[in-house]
Amino acid sequence: MELVRQNNPLIHCMTNDVVMNFTANGLLAIGASPVMAFSAAETEDMASVADALLLNIGTPSNEGVDSMVLAGKAANRAGKPVIFDPVGVGATPFRNEISKRILNEVDVAVVRGNAGEIAALLGQAGTVKGVDGKINADVKELCLQAAKALRTVVVVTGEVDAVSNGEQLVAVANGHEWLTKVVGTGCLLGGVIAAYAAVQPNSLVDAAVEALAFYGVCAEQAYEQTKKEGIGSFQQTFLNELGNMTDEKAAALKRVEQIC
Amino acid sequence: MELVRQNNPLIHCMTNDVVMNFTANGLLAIGASPVMAFSAAETEDMASVADALLLNIGTPSNEGVDSMVLAGKAANRAGKPVIFDPVGVGATPFRNEISKRILNEVDVAVVRGNAGEIAALLGQAGTVKGVDGKINADVKELCLQAAKALRTVVVVTGEVDAVSNGEQLVAVANGHEWLTKVVGTGCLLGGVIAAYAAVQPNSLVDAAVEALAFYGVCAEQAYEQTKKEGIGSFQQTFLNELGNMTDEKAAALKRVEQIC
Amino acid sequence: MELVRQNNPLIHCMTNDVVMNFTANGLLAIGASPVMAFSAAETEDMASVADALLLNIGTPSNEGVDSMVLAGKAANRAGKPVIFDPVGVGATPFRNEISKRILNEVDVAVVRGNAGEIAALLGQAGTVKGVDGKINADVKELCLQAAKALRTVVVVTGEVDAVSNGEQLVAVANGHEWLTKVVGTGCLLGGVIAAYAAVQPNSLVDAAVEALAFYGVCAEQAYEQTKKEGIGSFQQTFLNELGNMTDEKAAALKRVEQIC
Repeated sequence: MELVRQNNPLIHCMTNDVVMNFTANGLLAIGASPVMAFSAAETEDMASVADALLLNIGTPSNEGVDSMVLAGKAANRAGKPVIFDPVGVGATPFRNEISKRILNEVDVAVVRGNAGEIAALLGQAGTVKGVDGKINADVKELCLQAAKALRTVVVVTGEVDAVSNGEQLVAVANGHEWLTKVVGTGCLLGGVIAAYAAVQPNSLVDAAVEALAFYGVCAEQAYEQTKKEGIGSFQQTFLNELGNMTDEKAAALKRVEQIC
Repeated sequence: MELVRQNNPLIHCMTNDVVMNFTANGLLAIGASPVMAFSAAETEDMASVADALLLNIGTPSNEGVDSMVLAGKAANRAGKPVIFDPVGVGATPFRNEISKRILNEVDVAVVRGNAGEIAALLGQAGTVKGVDGKINADVKELCLQAAKALRTVVVVTGEVDAVSNGEQLVAVANGHEWLTKVVGTGCLLGGVIAAYAAVQPNSLVDAAVEALAFYGVCAEQAYEQTKKEGIGSFQQTFLNELGNMTDEKAAALKRVEQIC
Repeated sequence: MELVRQNNPLIHCMTNDVVMNFTANGLLAIGASPVMAFSAAETEDMASVADALLLNIGTPSNEGVDSMVLAGKAANRAGKPVIFDPVGVGATPFRNEISKRILNEVDVAVVRGNAGEIAALLGQAGTVKGVDGKINADVKELCLQAAKALRTVVVVTGEVDAVSNGEQLVAVANGHEWLTKVVGTGCLLGGVIAAYAAVQPNSLVDAAVEALAFYGVCAEQAYEQTKKEGIGSFQQTFLNELGNMTDEKAAALKRVEQIC
C-alpha cells in the first residue's frame, strides 16, 4: 500500500464502459494514477509508458479487443505486467473467443475472475460448483488447476478468495458481501491488483494477496460504518477507506491462509 | 419489489454512456442483476438469456442502433419484455429516425419518456403543453393517445406521471423535483420498470405503476433526509432508499389515481 | 453563478468516457443543462442548438475527433463559444495530432489545461517547469504566451490558476489539492467554464476567472466538511457545494489577482 503511494504507478486501464469512473476514483484513492486510452491509434504508446496494463472485457467489441491485444503486446515488450479480467466469459460465445484470443496473444501476468469465469476459461462451464463465489475444495482446486493450465497467477474471487501461481495456493477471507451490491467492485479490484503488481512485479502472488486483503479490509470497515444507512453510503465510504487505510491496520485485520 | 428481490431478474441494459454506472447501481440496489452488452457480436445472445431488455438512445450511434434492433428482435423471439426510452427524441432528426426505426422493427412492451419526447414520437413536437413535465389534461390525454397510436404501454413522466395501455389510464403523483437534478434518474427509472416488467410480464400497466410509485417514494424519502445538505447527498441517499425500501412502506406512501 | 442558474444554458459536452456522469451532475448542480451527443449523424444539429460546446479528448478516437470537428464548426457558425480541454496532450503522438487538428479547424474560445498540456500545445513539452500544477513565473508566462500563440483565452490550472487572453493575465488561488484525488474535476471545470462562457460570451476572461474562483471556493468548503472522512465524502460534498454556493459567498472568499 505504502509502496503504491510512494511509487504512484501509472495504470493503463482498458476497462469497460460501466466502471471507468469508479475504477479511476478507486485507483486515485490508493495513490495510483489511472489513465484510460482505447483507440488503436495510441494504445501501444500508452501501454509502453504505463507501469501496468489492465484488460477488462466487461463491454467488449471487436475493435476494442484489437486495441487490447495491441496494448498487451506493447506492455509485454516493455516488461510491464498485464492483468486480465475476463468479465462475463461463459455468458456469450463472443466473450469466450475474446478471452481465448487475449490469453493466446498476450503474456498475461494475473487473471482475475469469479469461479464461474475461471471455470469457463478452462472450458468447464456448468460443471463447477461455487459459481456464486462460495469457495470450497473445488474452487481452491480450480484456482490451482487454472494457474497450471494458464501458466499465470490466477485470482478467484468469492466469499473467500484464492490465489495461485500453479505451485503456491493462498486463501484470503477478507471482504464483505455488500461489495457485490456496488457495480465495478470486482473490476476495480483488478485495477488495484495491477497497481500492486506494478510496484512488486517479481512477486505477483504476494502482490495479489496483499491487494485482496487490503481491499477486503476496506470493505469490512466501510460496512461497519454504513450498515444502518445502505449501499449508497457504503460505496462512498469504501472510497474513503481506500484512501485512508494504512498497511498497519490492513495487516492487523487481514485473514490470509497459506494452503500450499 | 419483493418480487424483484426474490427473482433477481437479469436486465440487459443497452443504455447511454452517461448513465451506465448509475443504472447498474440502481438495479443492484433493488435486487435486479444488470448486464451491459452492446456489440452486435453478442447482443442477441445476451438478450436471449436476459429477463428483460432496456433500449435507451441517450448517446446514439448508427452502430449502436443496429445492435439495439438485433437485441430487440432476439428479446421478442424469446418472449422477454423490451422497454424503450427515447431520450432526446425531437431534439435532432437522427433521434427521430432512430426512434421510428426501433418502434417499427421491435415489438416494444413499454415506452417511457417525458411529455416532449412522447409528443415527438407522435409527430406533435412543439404543439404540446407540459413539455417540462407538468402534467395537465393534455398530458394525460397524450399518454392515452400515444398508447393507442403505438399499441404499447406508455409511461409519461413529469411532476405527475401517467401510465396507459390505450384503455386504462393511471396517474402517479410520487416523486421529487430533485430527481431532475441528478443525471440518469429518468434512465434508471426505465431500468426499474424493466425489472418490474420482467417479474410480472402479463400485467405491464401494474408493473409500471408500481415501479413509478416505489421510485417516487424513494425519492421523497431521500429528499427528506438530505434537503439541508444538497443533491450530492441526495444521489447517494436515493441509492440507500432503493435498497432499503419495503413494499409495505411504499404502499403506505404511494399516491396513485386510477383515471380510467 | 446566478446568471447560469437564471439562463440555464444548454452545454453540449463531447467529453471523455470516464467523466461523463460526473460532468453532467456537476453541470446540473450549477444550474446548467448538459447534453451529450457524439455521433457524426447528429453532432452538428446538437451543437447548433446548444449555448456552448465542450471538446475534451480524454479518451480520443479517430471517429470521435471527426465528430468533434463537425460539432466545433457548427458551433462556430452558430456563434456559440467552444471550450477545448486537451487532456493528456503530450502523452501520445495521437493526442498531439488531434489537438493540432482541433485548434486548426475550429475557432476555439477557451483552452483549458494543466501546465504540461499547455506547454505541449506550444511544442515545449519537457522544457517547462511546474507541470505538476505549481504555478511560478514560468507558468504565468506560459499562460500569456499560449494565449498569444493560440489567439484565444487560455486557462492553466494548477496550485494557482492563470487566465490570459494574450493581454490580460489573472491568477486565481482558490481550490484544494483534493480536487486532484477525484477523477474528472479538471474535466468538469471545463464544463463549468463553458457554462459561464455561454452566459457572458463577450467577456471570456471574466467568465473563466469567475468560474475558477467559484469552483475553487466550492472545493475549499467541501474539504473543510470532509477532511476527517476522506475523498469519497469530498466528492459528494463538492457536488452539494456546487449546488448550494451563492455568488455572495464565492465573492467573499475568492482570491483573485489581476497581474496585467
